[in-house]
Amino acid sequence: MPKVKETPSKAPKASAHPVSPLAPARFAALPPLAGVRLATGEAGVKYKDRTDVLLAVLAPGTQVAGVFTRSRTASAPVDWCRVQLKHGSARALVVNSGNANAFTGQAGVAGARAVAEAAAATVGCKASEIFMASTGVIGEPLPAEKITRILGRVAEEASASGWRASAEAIMTTDTYPKLATASAMIDGTKVTINGIAKGSGMIAPDMATMLAFVFTDAALPAAVLQECLAAGTGPSFNSITVDSDTSTSDTLLLFATGKGARHAAITKGSDKKLTEFRRKLDGVLLELALAVVKDGEGAQKLIRIDVSGAETNDAAKRIALSIANSPLVKTAIAGNDANWGRVVMAVGKAGEAADRDKLKISFGGHVVAEKGQRAAKYDEMIATKAVSGREVEIAVELGIGKGMARVWTCDLTHGYIDINGSYRS
Amino acid sequence: MPKVKETPSKAPKASAHPVSPLAPARFAALPPLAGVRLATGEAGVKYKDRTDVLLAVLAPGTQVAGVFTRSRTASAPVDWCRVQLKHGSARALVVNSGNANAFTGQAGVAGARAVAEAAAATVGCKASEIFMASTGVIGEPLPAEKITRILGRVAEEASASGWRASAEAIMTTDTYPKLATASAMIDGTKVTINGIAKGSGMIAPDMATMLAFVFTDAALPAAVLQECLAAGTGPSFNSITVDSDTSTSDTLLLFATGKGARHAAITKGSDKKLTEFRRKLDGVLLELALAVVKDGEGAQKLIRIDVSGAETNDAAKRIALSIANSPLVKTAIAGNDANWGRVVMAVGKAGEAADRDKLKISFGGHVVAEKGQRAAKYDEMIATKAVSGREVEIAVELGIGKGMARVWTCDLTHGYIDINGSYRS
Repeated sequence: MPKVKETPSKAPKASAHPVSPLAPARFAALPPLAGVRLATGEAGVKYKDRTDVLLAVLAPGTQVAGVFTRSRTASAPVDWCRVQLKHGSARALVVNSGNANAFTGQAGVAGARAVAEAAAATVGCKASEIFMASTGVIGEPLPAEKITRILGRVAEEASASGWRASAEAIMTTDTYPKLATASAMIDGTKVTINGIAKGSGMIAPDMATMLAFVFTDAALPAAVLQECLAAGTGPSFNSITVDSDTSTSDTLLLFATGKGARHAAITKGSDKKLTEFRRKLDGVLLELALAVVKDGEGAQKLIRIDVSGAETNDAAKRIALSIANSPLVKTAIAGNDANWGRVVMAVGKAGEAADRDKLKISFGGHVVAEKGQRAAKYDEMIATKAVSGREVEIAVELGIGKGMARVWTCDLTHGYIDINGSYRS
Repeated sequence: MPKVKETPSKAPKASAHPVSPLAPARFAALPPLAGVRLATGEAGVKYKDRTDVLLAVLAPGTQVAGVFTRSRTASAPVDWCRVQLKHGSARALVVNSGNANAFTGQAGVAGARAVAEAAAATVGCKASEIFMASTGVIGEPLPAEKITRILGRVAEEASASGWRASAEAIMTTDTYPKLATASAMIDGTKVTINGIAKGSGMIAPDMATMLAFVFTDAALPAAVLQECLAAGTGPSFNSITVDSDTSTSDTLLLFATGKGARHAAITKGSDKKLTEFRRKLDGVLLELALAVVKDGEGAQKLIRIDVSGAETNDAAKRIALSIANSPLVKTAIAGNDANWGRVVMAVGKAGEAADRDKLKISFGGHVVAEKGQRAAKYDEMIATKAVSGREVEIAVELGIGKGMARVWTCDLTHGYIDINGSYRS
């Protein structure tokens, strides 16, 4: 992978909180991607002395797919993207941090339109080809003019590098930028997939629970992109939770510029030539999703929960999320307490078929409970060790069917209270 | 109300945590109730130097009703009570704290039976007339013999007083005992209703989310009691949440000894002669439920949430609970932050019909958001004051129907993390 010189960034000052201990030792270095030029700027939407606007200029012909929050109080940018997605083509992406432009009424709608029109004038395209996302406080009017007045200047600096600076510009309570990259072969031709994401709190698996933008230089029509993205979201962004709270702004967009090396035309997501691309795309989505949950507000541990033997896959997922969202499970893990009784509780409350006497629970592979009671070979020291590291694995076998699911969450610590008792002010 | 001499109690040492600032200035003094004799003892199930067993001896002919957890991993005592409830008569109630006898397999079932048989031998009745509840750690085998061996001695001390000592003996992480009393007229005859409860964490509204035992000297058949209890549970115990976690042990029992002054025979819950009794019973249930949520683990504030204008009452309740269970709403209130954007978020994620532009949100009567944006007369100082006291009122008007609901929760503080990162060990 080529080394890329990165623009120095002012963004990390945004977080007043210590960097998550689960942050990667080094960030992925994303290579240039044909058809994408990036730039960031300081609009001062809310934060001072840091970047808070990202502009990604996309080559003519770029196709786009997206999934969004299921919130009934979605933000103005989400509404905007949903409408524009119907024609499937994109020429630029504008993202700001510091203000979510959610629950901002007609002024918010006008603000989104103003940003689109300014970006369209800058890039030279129709406003309908501008995609956008906003993240930050809900309910504050968006000072759109702070963004529109700098877009022209920002666009002048757009370049093929700047992925890390882009990931930093969209951070809010994030303590580190989130980046992932992969390459894949489509019918013998190498294509690149680059992705960035932001997210730390208000993370729950109800569609793309944060902002994430993935780009490829492959030539794929919007319908195919949408098929790939929808399938890849389930086991990645829809399988993570920090606090069970669903954002008003969740946006996951996938852009295909078609400016990489020429490859065979693809017209269906099920085309076998796309198999490797889809696998690599899924990997990028999962890597970004895990980066979000590892940066969960106050997180000290990554918790993986595997549920098997449920009635259906959906039932398994509901049980897994019941465990992942249980404050009592999450605080126990935070306290290095192998309190598997709380896992029993969380299975019990999920509302799905479960048989107490068939349930089997393991921590880090050590069986702690089975046959309706504590396992005969239960060892408190082994169980405690299994929940004391940075990564904790909880497995639940229900023994009544073939349904399976895997989800990730983080522990619930004092850090979460600190961050969220004072975020807005 | 007669003053009652209370047995000195050793129980309050149970909680290592400071008493909730929401605890009542003084506890209700419960009068003797004909047909109920109470005693507590120190079995040493888990705690040392405090009472942990309650025995309530009930007069022959006592009728009983109950509602229980909906957990799929319910405790052995819950299973036991469900079976015995079918015949509707009770002669004693045995409750222990320190161990929930949940997920304890066949040994747990045998332990519950052993307790019932010992109590039956002591009281002189059938084992099927013994009701019971256990609360504490899940998954630890219940040392039933510690309870059975002291029951005879405990029974000898049973007396008409001792309500406060009883409420204390069943505490776990509770920081204060929970008691309520009322009197009501049934067709010109005065009857008494006494209730005690315990609960602090693992509180979610999925049936009687803790232990609560209510007694009356009225003469009411089990079917009538069940009708009254089921109706009274919805707006009380089923309308509170601390942490969205449903216990394996939730038990609410209502006993009617029929040993008070004679009153007209009642054969239907809908009998007009029962109107005042039902209203007073509802009041006792609500008072106990609020005592539980005010003692929510780490609680510093009581939060009341009123939702109106929803499609249906059920929809209103789901929206109210979505707000009440949102960690982001609860941490904001903890931090005196009038962050109404998080209320918007919680409405949005509830999955119920909502129209952003019709939504109206008030804090303590001050309208903070309406018509899809911040209210024109929004005043940050007033809003902040409204969330800074011990009691916070959030009102949400959806403007699309006539559905209404009221629920209560508490804030989410460092205290919750402290208590639950170390409860088991």
